[in-house]
Amino acid sequence: MSDDLVTFGESMLRLSPPGNERLETTGELAVHAAGAESNTAIAAERLGAKASWLSKLPDTSPGRRIANGIRQHDITTDVVWAEEGRPGAYYLEHAGKPRGTNVVYDRADSEFSTAAAEEFNLDRVRNATAFYTTGITPALSEQMRETTVNMLSVARNAGTMVAFDVNYRRKLWEPEAARNTITRLFPAIDVLVIAAKDAEAVLDYDGEPTQLAHHLASEYEFRTVVVTRGAHGAVAIHDNVVHEQEAFETDTHDPIGSGDAFTGAFLARRLSGDDVGRALKYATATAALKRTIPGDVATVSKSEVDAIVADRTEDISR
Amino acid sequence: MSDDLVTFGESMLRLSPPGNERLETTGELAVHAAGAESNTAIAAERLGAKASWLSKLPDTSPGRRIANGIRQHDITTDVVWAEEGRPGAYYLEHAGKPRGTNVVYDRADSEFSTAAAEEFNLDRVRNATAFYTTGITPALSEQMRETTVNMLSVARNAGTMVAFDVNYRRKLWEPEAARNTITRLFPAIDVLVIAAKDAEAVLDYDGEPTQLAHHLASEYEFRTVVVTRGAHGAVAIHDNVVHEQEAFETDTHDPIGSGDAFTGAFLARRLSGDDVGRALKYATATAALKRTIPGDVATVSKSEVDAIVADRTEDISR
Amino acid sequence: MSDDLVTFGESMLRLSPPGNERLETTGELAVHAAGAESNTAIAAERLGAKASWLSKLPDTSPGRRIANGIRQHDITTDVVWAEEGRPGAYYLEHAGKPRGTNVVYDRADSEFSTAAAEEFNLDRVRNATAFYTTGITPALSEQMRETTVNMLSVARNAGTMVAFDVNYRRKLWEPEAARNTITRLFPAIDVLVIAAKDAEAVLDYDGEPTQLAHHLASEYEFRTVVVTRGAHGAVAIHDNVVHEQEAFETDTHDPIGSGDAFTGAFLARRLSGDDVGRALKYATATAALKRTIPGDVATVSKSEVDAIVADRTEDISR
Amino acid sequence: MSDDLVTFGESMLRLSPPGNERLETTGELAVHAAGAESNTAIAAERLGAKASWLSKLPDTSPGRRIANGIRQHDITTDVVWAEEGRPGAYYLEHAGKPRGTNVVYDRADSEFSTAAAEEFNLDRVRNATAFYTTGITPALSEQMRETTVNMLSVARNAGTMVAFDVNYRRKLWEPEAARNTITRLFPAIDVLVIAAKDAEAVLDYDGEPTQLAHHLASEYEFRTVVVTRGAHGAVAIHDNVVHEQEAFETDTHDPIGSGDAFTGAFLARRLSGDDVGRALKYATATAALKRTIPGDVATVSKSEVDAIVADRTEDISR
Amino acid sequence: MSDDLVTFGESMLRLSPPGNERLETTGELAVHAAGAESNTAIAAERLGAKASWLSKLPDTSPGRRIANGIRQHDITTDVVWAEEGRPGAYYLEHAGKPRGTNVVYDRADSEFSTAAAEEFNLDRVRNATAFYTTGITPALSEQMRETTVNMLSVARNAGTMVAFDVNYRRKLWEPEAARNTITRLFPAIDVLVIAAKDAEAVLDYDGEPTQLAHHLASEYEFRTVVVTRGAHGAVAIHDNVVHEQEAFETDTHDPIGSGDAFTGAFLARRLSGDDVGRALKYATATAALKRTIPGDVATVSKSEVDAIVADRTEDISR
Amino acid sequence: MSDDLVTFGESMLRLSPPGNERLETTGELAVHAAGAESNTAIAAERLGAKASWLSKLPDTSPGRRIANGIRQHDITTDVVWAEEGRPGAYYLEHAGKPRGTNVVYDRADSEFSTAAAEEFNLDRVRNATAFYTTGITPALSEQMRETTVNMLSVARNAGTMVAFDVNYRRKLWEPEAARNTITRLFPAIDVLVIAAKDAEAVLDYDGEPTQLAHHLASEYEFRTVVVTRGAHGAVAIHDNVVHEQEAFETDTHDPIGSGDAFTGAFLARRLSGDDVGRALKYATATAALKRTIPGDVATVSKSEVDAIVADRTEDISR
Repeated sequence: MSDDLVTFGESMLRLSPPGNERLETTGELAVHAAGAESNTAIAAERLGAKASWLSKLPDTSPGRRIANGIRQHDITTDVVWAEEGRPGAYYLEHAGKPRGTNVVYDRADSEFSTAAAEEFNLDRVRNATAFYTTGITPALSEQMRETTVNMLSVARNAGTMVAFDVNYRRKLWEPEAARNTITRLFPAIDVLVIAAKDAEAVLDYDGEPTQLAHHLASEYEFRTVVVTRGAHGAVAIHDNVVHEQEAFETDTHDPIGSGDAFTGAFLARRLSGDDVGRALKYATATAALKRTIPGDVATVSKSEVDAIVADRTEDISR
Repeated sequence: MSDDLVTFGESMLRLSPPGNERLETTGELAVHAAGAESNTAIAAERLGAKASWLSKLPDTSPGRRIANGIRQHDITTDVVWAEEGRPGAYYLEHAGKPRGTNVVYDRADSEFSTAAAEEFNLDRVRNATAFYTTGITPALSEQMRETTVNMLSVARNAGTMVAFDVNYRRKLWEPEAARNTITRLFPAIDVLVIAAKDAEAVLDYDGEPTQLAHHLASEYEFRTVVVTRGAHGAVAIHDNVVHEQEAFETDTHDPIGSGDAFTGAFLARRLSGDDVGRALKYATATAALKRTIPGDVATVSKSEVDAIVADRTEDISR
Repeated sequence: MSDDLVTFGESMLRLSPPGNERLETTGELAVHAAGAESNTAIAAERLGAKASWLSKLPDTSPGRRIANGIRQHDITTDVVWAEEGRPGAYYLEHAGKPRGTNVVYDRADSEFSTAAAEEFNLDRVRNATAFYTTGITPALSEQMRETTVNMLSVARNAGTMVAFDVNYRRKLWEPEAARNTITRLFPAIDVLVIAAKDAEAVLDYDGEPTQLAHHLASEYEFRTVVVTRGAHGAVAIHDNVVHEQEAFETDTHDPIGSGDAFTGAFLARRLSGDDVGRALKYATATAALKRTIPGDVATVSKSEVDAIVADRTEDISR
Repeated sequence: MSDDLVTFGESMLRLSPPGNERLETTGELAVHAAGAESNTAIAAERLGAKASWLSKLPDTSPGRRIANGIRQHDITTDVVWAEEGRPGAYYLEHAGKPRGTNVVYDRADSEFSTAAAEEFNLDRVRNATAFYTTGITPALSEQMRETTVNMLSVARNAGTMVAFDVNYRRKLWEPEAARNTITRLFPAIDVLVIAAKDAEAVLDYDGEPTQLAHHLASEYEFRTVVVTRGAHGAVAIHDNVVHEQEAFETDTHDPIGSGDAFTGAFLARRLSGDDVGRALKYATATAALKRTIPGDVATVSKSEVDAIVADRTEDISR
Repeated sequence: MSDDLVTFGESMLRLSPPGNERLETTGELAVHAAGAESNTAIAAERLGAKASWLSKLPDTSPGRRIANGIRQHDITTDVVWAEEGRPGAYYLEHAGKPRGTNVVYDRADSEFSTAAAEEFNLDRVRNATAFYTTGITPALSEQMRETTVNMLSVARNAGTMVAFDVNYRRKLWEPEAARNTITRLFPAIDVLVIAAKDAEAVLDYDGEPTQLAHHLASEYEFRTVVVTRGAHGAVAIHDNVVHEQEAFETDTHDPIGSGDAFTGAFLARRLSGDDVGRALKYATATAALKRTIPGDVATVSKSEVDAIVADRTEDISR
Repeated sequence: MSDDLVTFGESMLRLSPPGNERLETTGELAVHAAGAESNTAIAAERLGAKASWLSKLPDTSPGRRIANGIRQHDITTDVVWAEEGRPGAYYLEHAGKPRGTNVVYDRADSEFSTAAAEEFNLDRVRNATAFYTTGITPALSEQMRETTVNMLSVARNAGTMVAFDVNYRRKLWEPEAARNTITRLFPAIDVLVIAAKDAEAVLDYDGEPTQLAHHLASEYEFRTVVVTRGAHGAVAIHDNVVHEQEAFETDTHDPIGSGDAFTGAFLARRLSGDDVGRALKYATATAALKRTIPGDVATVSKSEVDAIVADRTEDISR
């Protein structure tokens, strides 16, 4: 049975001190499996799509830990196992203002970053309804820039719809390098998701979100453009029609992964036939719910998201 | 020495993932002993009453865990021990908006739900100043509906004052069943506590709280009616006099049990001679304090509540 | 693609205090997903078989927790999801002598125990090379006794090899009831695994293990009989040939699930073509490794077991 | 209702790093309530006696923590609450050989150590069947030496049987001081419990245990003398008859409190009518069980001890 | 190499239940090393000063735990080790309104409180640029009042600049005693830091902060006076010039130690040549950052504080 | 003031699941700072030497965590801080037989492995009495092979005594590469420590330990050779005199770092003037004590080691 959505990207060990503790002094680290594309696949599966994740990992206990953490969420994991090497990792400290959430990457020279497109199960890409990766993937290495181009070609040539989130990470590359690489990928993309702040940082475009969406849609001929604005909601343009959605109120426990939850839910609802406006509402609700959950992953059920969309939430449900 | 307040009801293992963690992915559960009536007895004891709790539990390690957890708080526990069977349990997930706090009950066929009135130490009920149970008790089983009626009769016939909190739980029964059962208990009740939202759900009464209190007092001839409204404070009517109390500001850590803390404090202060207005203020202050405390139980001291009532709290006390 | 091994049985929440802590006083419980048949499927998958697990669970957060815990281990989970109900659970205390490891079951009236054979994906059973369940399954309810008979018939009629571990649990049923039920299942079974102590308790047979194996093989016409003896190793008889295997030295951290690890490894190695003697050695080595691992599940790799079988283990590997 | 056994002594906060961790580097401490006499009362209650504990604590949160920890075990706590002051505390590190278990006391100037006999509920002592304290009590302060003499007088004069464990602590006082003080208490004592190594350290008597018991019984006219020898079992002499008991095999997790478990069980069984030999067997079995349990307290059930006494224990009970 | 800043004071074990847990019911305590003067030294070091801490501790494992906790932060610890005795300790409960953060001291008769000035390495004081202690030090004992006077004399006579934070603790002494003692120290002080609420409690001065600063500067001839007002920022007067600084927005996780972070940063920036206004801004930013960090200590880097001062913080940095 | 012992080598984050947990399934990792040479420096300091550690780390929060963890133990840390890069890390799983303790290194391309000798504070090497590194250092990179040669030259030329532990790690390099590199370092070494099993693996010498020591001493003209044999004790030859020492009985909790504890203690006692036999006894006792302690570091006091050497240990010390 083919997938509704195939995602492709690196997942890592996420290592974070408990609570507000600092890395400098912590005696323990919480372990999560985390990566933008597997996060998105999981959110999509939970919102109703049949989703899978393609990746490469070393067949070591840290590498297997990552796959196990993702697999429990009932998506299909299609992993190329290397005999040795290291998985990516990142350290995370959480805090409120003025400290904020801080990421220290340790993903250089990861096994994933060395992989060529032909190592992966490309038939899965060809047979799926949609393919998804993010701007993090080509940021990882020269090899990955080439691999990303190739994966997108495979999808494009097979008629698989391509969705892409810009996901700019300034700790991985400079804005100019990102712009050069990512805009070259744009012609292969059908659905673009971009945070307003990434549009400013990478594309140097700081206009109003609806204008930005129009601009991108017309300039690069995307069928769908979604501009996300965190607490200010999101805007989508699809076939020249604009859809706006306010954010739902949320008590943020862990903001990491809320963008991926958004995109996974958006794609799942679109793939199951919802119109863009309704998909945007589910996406926004799923992102709000994600922010209450520790870890990168949106461990939600569709019925929980339904309740938010229908404004049926309670302070205490018993 | 007889009790000021005897409470009767089921207490359970409360199993909750740490922090905002989800049950689906948690590797550990915090264990608390919890039940509306034991919560109330503990709050009452801490606010100055001599309180006890009647219940039934299986004499297994999970059953004993429940009694141990309650006993540490210095109330009298008068437990019927069954040789086998299961105790009730409930799973709890905490989060802020839009997720809220979610309860999954696992209390069907618990040992308590099978008990008849004559199994319990009824002399304790007869000798006490006041008897207390909640609308949860008759919701548990057909047997418990009968047992509740019988316990209230015992109290009534002995001249023990009867206090009752409606405590509607939609995950245990339907509104109509609750209404039919609970209103039949009303004639035996002297002091009724009811959340405004329960009045709406069960009694289909959504008027203004003071009117609700008047309506209930006159319709069912309660000596005292207390209507609670969470963050909006509480209203009491006693001997036709209305008392209003605003809620105290509180940073909620765990909202579960704040209603029981309220009622326990109210009854304790009434039983020690405070007037209704002052008892209402202590009740509201105790509820506010409870919301800062993990677990169902109001682990407070009277002097802490005194400080809130007297507006003598500090951000840091050292 | 069809399975090498399909297993069928109930899995539960396993709730255990940390370390040697007692349930009566514990403030937290470690959570594992556990069940004899899913344990066996996981061990089989890790030792080289393509394994799956059929079961039924309520679609609640505790129910989903169980499936998630099993799914991370890369077996196929084929679960019938009920809209409500309760999953089974068990409490576990660990200690050395003279306390030992103690189990308190809370699995009465679980959703699984109500399921009929036709609720499950029987084609999976028909298409598999082997089918496996244990004596725990028919111990759960009258319904499950019928369901077990029916599942074995399905397998038998489809030519699927049937393996069965007697797995007697005295806290679930009396020896006589177990004997009556289990011996009626024997004609449908090809491979019988039985602990020597269970043979004594259930079959009232306390002879020497090799004699026991012979007796069972001839009396009930099993193709293969494996008698396990904990620290004293195991004996198998297959096509009238006896194979003996001593236990490997092990520092036991958690003995629960070592029998399932044994059987999973035995079946996996048999299904991949190893002879009975070699399969028995892998089974014994996997069981020894399991005893060092917390939880019911043998989180092992085949290369780790290879190292034990080849006597290549080290105190410190670096 | 009067008590079978009243105990008198200080209980403390016991603060221990998790596992084998060192105090120098630990980031957390496990908290237990601990004290020889409350430990003994709890063991006695669990083995069938009605037991209580007299003590004094400051009414602060650390002080209340101690009482709560003891109260959960269902003994009667009769505590004199001081308005301020400090409770005793001790730090504990656990390890195997060659490090061993190490205690650092922080109990100087505790509130308990300042208390006079007349502060306590002496009628409880007068009405009980037996009174118990240990050699730790007079070691705490000059005041406590006087208070201990006075408490023993109260018991003696009321005809309450007096039991006493020498419990020598070299980190609290010198052997000579202990000898002088404790031997002056001997005339008031009916049942003496003494560890063989304490007899050597304090009384300078290093003979064979049976001789020691005879010597003490005749020299000081005790009705019963029990000499404990850890892994070597125990010997009792009562009315000139010698009873010997070997130790039960035990995997020690926490040795602290096993002596108190021994004495509590011995006294409980004696008070319920068992003869000295049988009481000694229960005492030894309870001590063995205690060693498997974290904390000072023997959280055991009588049926567990029955199983050891009857040699009915299992490695896994399920 | 001599120090920029020498601090002198007691540091303690800080023992706090996890999260919002209450001491009465907690099963564990987080351990931190804490003390106003070592906190200040660490903040100063991290903001660019070469800082040291003079103190006295018992050479026991709890005593060494304190020194280890401080030493990891890279300041120089110059500790007088006593052969026995007890270190100070304090218990801490955290909560939001209306409970607040509550401290229970257990520092009476600590080893530090018995020390005379000549026990310490006075050359370190003489050779440093600045010396610092707080009003907590003379509050500890009669001896410490004398020692504090002597330490200040040593500094004064050597031409070492003296900085002092009033740090009034009502649980250690009465306002009048504090006033008498502290005002007698004023003539030796160059830089006074005082919380507005301490000015009110101890000096009975409840005017507007700038007036207070002027009043103190003129009355006692301080070169610099800093008045802190928590969420309302701080005011400094130096050479008759007033500097005001608003507080930075902060999500408080642990407020304890934010005053020490403030003062450490202020002194470090002053000692490295910043003017009072800029030092005040760094002090306020460091205090805001501290409030996000568990424990007493400001585990910050100067670059983090730079980012706040320059208004360059992000919600998520990746 | 110059050091008695300067050590040089990489220290890492050590990340280990709690208890016997597997990396594949763990939700948390304990964090320690660990490295052979810093371990050795700490053991030396605690046994009486003035010790320091030279290294290089990135100035990131994971990098600083390593330095903080080492610094708390009161040795001097002299670290070159790189602006970016990664620190080394290793994952560790603990278990008894047959699993053993397993290390997965993640230290390739660490910042340390890129450092040249001239980056370090070479005067510290020149001024010290002794210099120490291990065979791990040249195993890390081509650069480190050169750096190690250069560091040894600096020491040699300055007349600083050179001590070296072969410390073969097969997961870092092949035996042949190790032999070639390490034997080329031998001429610069005064004191060689080698595990008997490393002699076999690297030098292909599997004779009896005393012969091995003689062979090495004569072949390479070491002044001192120490051959360690784990549970079988150690042998030293010094100036042609043989010293043998049996191992002390130990209940192993964490074997990692016991070799470093051995060498640190040996060097410290030698540097303080003990003869080789006595130093060997202290080394063996320190190693035994280390095995009871979690983490790589020997958090011991000299008085604890004195007690083992003098055979004065107790099961419980109170």
